[in-house]
Amino acid sequence: MRQTQVLVIGGSAAGLTAAITAKRHYQDKKVALVRKEKDVLIPCGIPYIFGTVGTPEKNLIPDAPLEKNDIELIIKGVKEINREEKFIVTDDDEKVGYEKLIIATGSLPIVPPIPGVEMENVFCVQKDVSYLNNVLESIDCCSDVVIMGCGFIGVEFAEEIKKRKPDANIKIVEMLTNCLQLVFDEEFSIKAEETLREEGIELLLDEKVESFVGGDKIEGVKLSSGREIKADVAILGIGARANVELAEKAGIELGPTKAIQVNRYLQTSDNDIFACGDCAEKVSFFDGKASGLKLASIAAMEARIAGTNLYHLRRSSMGVIGVFSTLLGNTAFAAAGLTESMAKDKGYTYVVGEAESMNCHPGGMPGASPLKVKLIFEQGTRKLLGGQVSGAKSGGELINAISACIHQNMTADDIATFQTGTHPALTASPIAYQLVNAAEEAIANCYKLAREAVMT
Amino acid sequence: MRQTQVLVIGGSAAGLTAAITAKRHYQDKKVALVRKEKDVLIPCGIPYIFGTVGTPEKNLIPDAPLEKNDIELIIKGVKEINREEKFIVTDDDEKVGYEKLIIATGSLPIVPPIPGVEMENVFCVQKDVSYLNNVLESIDCCSDVVIMGCGFIGVEFAEEIKKRKPDANIKIVEMLTNCLQLVFDEEFSIKAEETLREEGIELLLDEKVESFVGGDKIEGVKLSSGREIKADVAILGIGARANVELAEKAGIELGPTKAIQVNRYLQTSDNDIFACGDCAEKVSFFDGKASGLKLASIAAMEARIAGTNLYHLRRSSMGVIGVFSTLLGNTAFAAAGLTESMAKDKGYTYVVGEAESMNCHPGGMPGASPLKVKLIFEQGTRKLLGGQVSGAKSGGELINAISACIHQNMTADDIATFQTGTHPALTASPIAYQLVNAAEEAIANCYKLAREAVMT
Repeated sequence: MRQTQVLVIGGSAAGLTAAITAKRHYQDKKVALVRKEKDVLIPCGIPYIFGTVGTPEKNLIPDAPLEKNDIELIIKGVKEINREEKFIVTDDDEKVGYEKLIIATGSLPIVPPIPGVEMENVFCVQKDVSYLNNVLESIDCCSDVVIMGCGFIGVEFAEEIKKRKPDANIKIVEMLTNCLQLVFDEEFSIKAEETLREEGIELLLDEKVESFVGGDKIEGVKLSSGREIKADVAILGIGARANVELAEKAGIELGPTKAIQVNRYLQTSDNDIFACGDCAEKVSFFDGKASGLKLASIAAMEARIAGTNLYHLRRSSMGVIGVFSTLLGNTAFAAAGLTESMAKDKGYTYVVGEAESMNCHPGGMPGASPLKVKLIFEQGTRKLLGGQVSGAKSGGELINAISACIHQNMTADDIATFQTGTHPALTASPIAYQLVNAAEEAIANCYKLAREAVMT
Repeated sequence: MRQTQVLVIGGSAAGLTAAITAKRHYQDKKVALVRKEKDVLIPCGIPYIFGTVGTPEKNLIPDAPLEKNDIELIIKGVKEINREEKFIVTDDDEKVGYEKLIIATGSLPIVPPIPGVEMENVFCVQKDVSYLNNVLESIDCCSDVVIMGCGFIGVEFAEEIKKRKPDANIKIVEMLTNCLQLVFDEEFSIKAEETLREEGIELLLDEKVESFVGGDKIEGVKLSSGREIKADVAILGIGARANVELAEKAGIELGPTKAIQVNRYLQTSDNDIFACGDCAEKVSFFDGKASGLKLASIAAMEARIAGTNLYHLRRSSMGVIGVFSTLLGNTAFAAAGLTESMAKDKGYTYVVGEAESMNCHPGGMPGASPLKVKLIFEQGTRKLLGGQVSGAKSGGELINAISACIHQNMTADDIATFQTGTHPALTASPIAYQLVNAAEEAIANCYKLAREAVMT
């Protein structure tokens, strides 16, 4: 029997990062990674295959870090985990022994039980090179694309397909009222919708897919409003569910969202087996309740905890904050933590502060464009609960400063007085720096609310 | 006598921000700002007047925020502070009464006592529109420019003058061994030097200006090496000293760097008088020792403390971290906190972690360029002491995430597991995210040092 000490199942953001982390913290251990895919796609890059990047082959996670870190790569499927004797069994019946096992089997796209979903040219987003090449071929011959779901996957696919096929009719069908509604407050969603519409993408909001219409091949989509729209390709972008088949079969406990239950150390119900990434249960940073968030950045974070804790429990998860960013047209949209509506749902009394200014100073600098920051604080403690950003591309890093502030429980006063570096070509001026000024604005709003409370 | 409640002297980053902050926190108080300049220059924008922006008039701080916040603007010089009767006297002998006074008189450029420094066309960097228009005119007719000092002012002036006058010979004379040596470690300085040299800027390092040579007008510069170089314009960029004349005359105490002594609340030796920005003493965030740092971003941060504390002490300064950024060519250079040599000087045992990857992912995304992060941690506690960044422009915001991490005393483990948002067009991948990976690398180096210690 092939014997390793640390064995990782899965080769995407969680698996790869877990293997590298294990090797970093336990240098003398023999680490191996087993995955079924010859090539692993960069998950967040998948929509960009259809436009900017061009092909799946240009969107691969390189294997070099595995070699560099002396991690054995086994390209095989895994069909069984034998916890008693501590080995796994591959598709071709090889046994590989382990001391510590990390399950990073990721997620599978949700395929809704809608009539006609099995038709040709109805695709979900599978992380598989040949599958995506099929999607690509179908898109190249199509004229009407319907995307189901107006979350990040939906809007990014729509934009990229539009880049590839400027003449195609592209429609997104979304059952909620706004695009990206689960991550942004309404004003940001509306701005995103405007951007998409300007690019010629049609948004059908507050609208459900009733059925896919056609013969063997899809020809149209029937909506709940009764409208029927033409479609020669449909793409399902409505989310993913944890891939837990292997773990479940091995008797490892699942949690409330049917993902693998883990504790704060990312240990499963078997102390020698860890799980991280999309296949693992998550709790919210804010209230410890179960969270369904599935993000590559969370996967990598959890992998850095799991990989470190294999032989000693050294790191624990604070729960997921949820940090998102995307680029629509030339506008970055990013969010971290709670939106107003999430804060309301979780029972917070909150106060908002906003600030908008140019990303360069003076405003006459070349390439200057507006950048807006909205922050949400708990009213009593003035602790930061969430932030949203739209505008210049530097917003993609600014949201990470905001995430650090949330992670550290910084208050509006902490943020208003923390030290920023500013430069004419790179940021707003120190007087107009959005993150700081949004915190100040929130404090002004606290005063205002207090005055109003006295008056009534 | 004109009567106000809060009176601010000075209209730049500190004064303007202090006045707005005062109004925000004490909405019912009458706030006035007195300054001598009709127009106030954006301090960090001054080098860009000479190239990108074009004229001083396009680099002004607008007065609109004063009007919007109902702050009275008095454009007059101030010649006296009467602390006993609580009023100031303007140049034209008007008295203006105050309850609380904020001194934000900024700094003055250092003019070294070098022979010939009084010659025509030897300029310092005065924050004055007509003075800078004179500099501009002289540069427009010159062919040989010598800049004294290879700090931020020096390198930014050199680049911008080169943009304005591509045929001019531009030389920077610096007594230290590397450019930007007080802010960056050697490898970053060398990268900056390479960028400048590629643009045709000559760097004369380890070299001092002995004298300016010529008649009424400068014709050359004599160096300590004996070399004499041609110059029809010289610019002094060797730093600034606190402008404290007014405070000193009023008997307000000065501190070790001859700036106005303030406590953590930014109060001077007179409880009703606060000082902030370049005119105020600073202490280091790291060891509480006096710091000579003078930055617009620090000025704005201190102003937000002083303005809040006028009637109640609500915020205190944690001392200055020092956060810098600039753009040389297309490369951003940014730093926060301690470099290796500063950490050594302050007696820290430290460990370094570095990570470099593209600012987009996959690497084939348009506009992808490398971004490097270096982090310095105290070895025992693994607390972050400093960070340096070079590469893509998003480094300008990334350094602010690093500053937040320093401010919050985050450890390498905190940073390795804090949650980042990543996106193909905006950041590195979650697997390769530089800030997180540099922290992991530092931990790996801690292990390595521990193993080596056992072996010896």
